[in-house]
Amino acid sequence: MPGLRVGLLGLGTVGTGVLKLLGANRGMIEAKVGAPIEVVRALVRHPGRTRDHELPALSLTSDPGSVVGAPDIDLVVEVMGGITPARDYMVQALRAGQWVITANKDVVAEYGDDLYAAADAGHSAFFFEASVGGGIPIIRALKESLAANRIQSVMGIVNGTTNYILTKMSQQGQDFGEALATAQQLGYAEADPTADVDGHDAARKLAILCSMAFLTRIKPGQIHTEGIRGVSARDIQMGQRFGWVVKLLAIGKATANGIEVRVHPTFIPKEHPLASVNDVLNGIFVSGDAVGETMFYGRGAGSLPTASSVVGDLIQAALARQSGGATLGCTCYEERPLLPMSGVTSRYYLRLIVADQPGVLARVASAFGDAGVSIESVVQAPRSAEAAEVVFVTHSVQEGRLQSAVAAVRQQTDVVHRIDSLIRVEA
Amino acid sequence: MPGLRVGLLGLGTVGTGVLKLLGANRGMIEAKVGAPIEVVRALVRHPGRTRDHELPALSLTSDPGSVVGAPDIDLVVEVMGGITPARDYMVQALRAGQWVITANKDVVAEYGDDLYAAADAGHSAFFFEASVGGGIPIIRALKESLAANRIQSVMGIVNGTTNYILTKMSQQGQDFGEALATAQQLGYAEADPTADVDGHDAARKLAILCSMAFLTRIKPGQIHTEGIRGVSARDIQMGQRFGWVVKLLAIGKATANGIEVRVHPTFIPKEHPLASVNDVLNGIFVSGDAVGETMFYGRGAGSLPTASSVVGDLIQAALARQSGGATLGCTCYEERPLLPMSGVTSRYYLRLIVADQPGVLARVASAFGDAGVSIESVVQAPRSAEAAEVVFVTHSVQEGRLQSAVAAVRQQTDVVHRIDSLIRVEA
Repeated sequence: MPGLRVGLLGLGTVGTGVLKLLGANRGMIEAKVGAPIEVVRALVRHPGRTRDHELPALSLTSDPGSVVGAPDIDLVVEVMGGITPARDYMVQALRAGQWVITANKDVVAEYGDDLYAAADAGHSAFFFEASVGGGIPIIRALKESLAANRIQSVMGIVNGTTNYILTKMSQQGQDFGEALATAQQLGYAEADPTADVDGHDAARKLAILCSMAFLTRIKPGQIHTEGIRGVSARDIQMGQRFGWVVKLLAIGKATANGIEVRVHPTFIPKEHPLASVNDVLNGIFVSGDAVGETMFYGRGAGSLPTASSVVGDLIQAALARQSGGATLGCTCYEERPLLPMSGVTSRYYLRLIVADQPGVLARVASAFGDAGVSIESVVQAPRSAEAAEVVFVTHSVQEGRLQSAVAAVRQQTDVVHRIDSLIRVEA
Repeated sequence: MPGLRVGLLGLGTVGTGVLKLLGANRGMIEAKVGAPIEVVRALVRHPGRTRDHELPALSLTSDPGSVVGAPDIDLVVEVMGGITPARDYMVQALRAGQWVITANKDVVAEYGDDLYAAADAGHSAFFFEASVGGGIPIIRALKESLAANRIQSVMGIVNGTTNYILTKMSQQGQDFGEALATAQQLGYAEADPTADVDGHDAARKLAILCSMAFLTRIKPGQIHTEGIRGVSARDIQMGQRFGWVVKLLAIGKATANGIEVRVHPTFIPKEHPLASVNDVLNGIFVSGDAVGETMFYGRGAGSLPTASSVVGDLIQAALARQSGGATLGCTCYEERPLLPMSGVTSRYYLRLIVADQPGVLARVASAFGDAGVSIESVVQAPRSAEAAEVVFVTHSVQEGRLQSAVAAVRQQTDVVHRIDSLIRVEA
């Protein structure tokens, strides 16, 4: 059986993990595949620099053309990250008939359709298990194992940085800035944490998950995205009184009126399986019409967990090539409308700072009532001599209606000082 | 593209679910496969009886030969259950070149090697995602997604009946008999509950999981198996004082001295992800050298969850046949020794009824000490005028040594009335 000749694009954290894992479990992998998987060349910026975990037969190059489209490379593993030039390299490789495995959520989320088109053109195949959830096999679960299901919803904790920050805030009462600083010290957050804390990373992963789950192409720009900067220790504390924990959830739901796609801080009951997914761990909750509720849990990032998915794809690719080549291609064959955020139905938690005088609560409550928003519970606490804090939890209501109510409440400037927070609550 | 012509063996709960799911999601499945999946014939005992969910084109037969080995059937779905004749039908079908999908844990656990041999002989393929964990895609996870990992351990709640009973005992303080009766009323336990409550069902599933995880064939008879009849409401209550919950765990671990395979009631910390897998749900916790700790959670039984896995296999099989046919075969290519139960290392919880007189605790404790068993904590409570209850929790110790200590303690018949329970504790 001929071996699989692999070229790497990039040799950073993930690429190094791939080499390490292929080295450590070489015998087992060869036994499963029936042939060796050989990494023959890696594209790096500085081929002269010495590195750990090099394979003896591996040659380093700074010339993309000696990997992408090279006749002695069957399959390209893209682990360089970023959009450019990773996207172009992958498209070229696929068009040239090379198979591609990538861990690149940015390119898969934004240009997944281009990659599939290139694979069709080149009669090649592409794999991206590592692009969402690190070592958690969620891509194959959605694309293959649960393929018989109409997926009803996907709810995931898919960003380890924000989950770490929210866990510290919840367990130790830290505020956002303090928890972010700790995360940065531990290497869980980057110096510029924007992509993580503002929810963009989670939105990209949700775009990938929902494109598979709902059989229609969804791009990150279509996703309502809020980060966790506005979540305060006070809200977390109040949530605990209701039996909730706060998580940055990436949510996709198929409703009769369209598909909801949204990323935002969310209160969930502490008994929910996602509530105990803490620290940098990821968890993805999937509901399907046949399977019911399932959850997948594990390390969403890191060198070896991500390499676990990349090398799992390598093994699958090697086996599929032996059999002649067909793999499940793009399944975004439906055109399904998205539901605008105003059409989403949710429960809401609102924390207001109001004047501490009789009748204020009634005035605010009636503003909600006038807008058709029904209140489930109210908690009021004095805050200072003049101000009181009031928390409203609504029954399920359309977001558009809720936002009208919020606008009306804000107009009562004589008694409503400000709305400190608005957090959605999932059952 | 030619369609896949499917024959069913059995049309009970799972078979009906398969037809229902194929009917409900027909368009989606055909779009993914690029060709129809047609169930053309089903073997049933009474072909004359009318049934729900029949497909118009489906013909019923009581003649096995018109499904098994029939030239107009490409693939046989075995959902009749039991060893005989299911095993023989599957072997015949595979030898005749028909592909086989089964939900039959008994046959896969006891005769998985025979099925793979028959598939080799017939150049066919067999799939068994539904045999463990119902709708949870754990087979494909172990066999494909995590294929790059050396698996270190598998710990699963794989029997819904016992998990339901233990959940009721924990949450409502019911005793075993009471919880079993409720489970029987709800249809979660059979009239003869032996296979479930004595751990045999879990052992069969563990045999399948461990054969894949550890790349060596493990059969149910090799697994140390204890059921939950001996778990008392009192033990559950005591466990709660230590911060534990009790679960019937199926455990496989790769150690330097061999592979541990065991099914028994187990205390785990209430923070462990498996601790919140309640009622009839299943959860399987897998550790691999690259991926770290992962968990898979969902409905472990039932018509549609099981059908989700069967039809998922059907879709994979249909796609694989289009590409020429290779699928990952048997991966039990290693010969690895099993560790006898006496060599297993664990912590232990023991509840003793002893004479309520000074010096008894010291005597029992020194019997443990003499046998080399180190005590982590002791809780004593008076029980009646003459008897006291003592709970010992040991540090990690080899089971052989612990059992010697238990024998020595039992010999102190003047002060030790009995050992009421011995439950292992996992970290």
